[in-house]
Amino acid sequence: MRLPRTGIGVDVHAYGDDSAELWLAGLHWPGEPGLSGHSDGDPVAHAAADALFSAAGIGDLGTHFGTDRPEYAGASGTTLLAAAARIIREAGFDIGNIAVQFVANRPKFGPRRAEAEAVLTEAAGAPVSVSATTSDALGFAGRGEGIAAIATALVYPSTGTAAQH
Amino acid sequence: MRLPRTGIGVDVHAYGDDSAELWLAGLHWPGEPGLSGHSDGDPVAHAAADALFSAAGIGDLGTHFGTDRPEYAGASGTTLLAAAARIIREAGFDIGNIAVQFVANRPKFGPRRAEAEAVLTEAAGAPVSVSATTSDALGFAGRGEGIAAIATALVYPSTGTAAQH
Amino acid sequence: MRLPRTGIGVDVHAYGDDSAELWLAGLHWPGEPGLSGHSDGDPVAHAAADALFSAAGIGDLGTHFGTDRPEYAGASGTTLLAAAARIIREAGFDIGNIAVQFVANRPKFGPRRAEAEAVLTEAAGAPVSVSATTSDALGFAGRGEGIAAIATALVYPSTGTAAQH
Repeated sequence: MRLPRTGIGVDVHAYGDDSAELWLAGLHWPGEPGLSGHSDGDPVAHAAADALFSAAGIGDLGTHFGTDRPEYAGASGTTLLAAAARIIREAGFDIGNIAVQFVANRPKFGPRRAEAEAVLTEAAGAPVSVSATTSDALGFAGRGEGIAAIATALVYPSTGTAAQH
Repeated sequence: MRLPRTGIGVDVHAYGDDSAELWLAGLHWPGEPGLSGHSDGDPVAHAAADALFSAAGIGDLGTHFGTDRPEYAGASGTTLLAAAARIIREAGFDIGNIAVQFVANRPKFGPRRAEAEAVLTEAAGAPVSVSATTSDALGFAGRGEGIAAIATALVYPSTGTAAQH
Repeated sequence: MRLPRTGIGVDVHAYGDDSAELWLAGLHWPGEPGLSGHSDGDPVAHAAADALFSAAGIGDLGTHFGTDRPEYAGASGTTLLAAAARIIREAGFDIGNIAVQFVANRPKFGPRRAEAEAVLTEAAGAPVSVSATTSDALGFAGRGEGIAAIATALVYPSTGTAAQH
């Protein structure tokens, strides 16, 4: 029997300057104030990737996409999540699912939730669920200073040919 | 073999006005300062429900108990958790367990932990564990501005008759 | 089939006075500003232990290591994690894995990640992964007031002789 491994990931991005555009949960949100980091400042995608690395026990975003990997500089959240999923599989794991919740006053997420989940699920090659909440005006998210996301993931040691990857 | 799916839920409620009574982890806490939202402001029950929705990938509290569902307006945390558990099962999942930790300076939780877990376990129809911690006087919880709760849950695709629900 | 149970743990420690030394993720960090609580102020080890208790549904750090258990006063994080793992096993559970992420501006964790994971894995007798992130200068961690850690864990009901413990 293959036992799952659980992982956890947290990511926070502050709002950026007036020119920043919002990328959140794999989607572009026109007209919404953007986070610092522009297209590579997607806390939902980053938390999801970190939860995968955490579950597999192979480091974190900094380990795999840090400053010594210039090919990922400025990469979008979905690009990083897809790369993380590939690294996880190459390390000998299958992905069960990833679940992310973000904490923010805006944008209104419900109308685009299915779209976001489809984009992130495609990137990860495994089910990604995304939900949203607020912090009742408390803390940095409640003051509108940034967006926080927290993710959990399950991975499984691969069977069969996985060891050959 | 049925593979579990993991989910995550976060909820925060600020303290309310002087007339608010505290409902936390499914229990009424006489004499304790209350959270905004009165009986429907239980961050432990809400985080638990959101973790279930997250694990099943079917949205969040806003999706199921939002303003377009007036029958849930003012509902207690245990009512919402019981309704969430019913929705999860109708969507074709069994619930493995739910684990919640809340962050608050008060109330002293240990003496009533077993009582809280019994009430929430009854509501969910599955084991709910609740633990408590403080944030060493830091952040909004440490300043006594509100209570935060974070939950994780495991659900399983139902077997047999589940598809007929 | 043995179904896993998931658990969650959060821990926060504020920075201490100038004499405090940093213990984080089971390691001593010479020259780094320390957290309050000295050797027993390791949020990574504490969150890991709380995630175990949460998964097993047997309380939290306060339940097991509280002021009525003076033998744990001042105990290091690894001592507490090892004790928690022993308590979990005595309660009839095997540990699947524990995953922790901490949020802090410093120290630079990557170079010592493998060392930390080895120490904590030895203490728990099960795989412990540790990752690090920042909060983009937001919140108490971003302002350098303290370090937060969040952990998730999977445990399994023991087979065979477990019930005899």
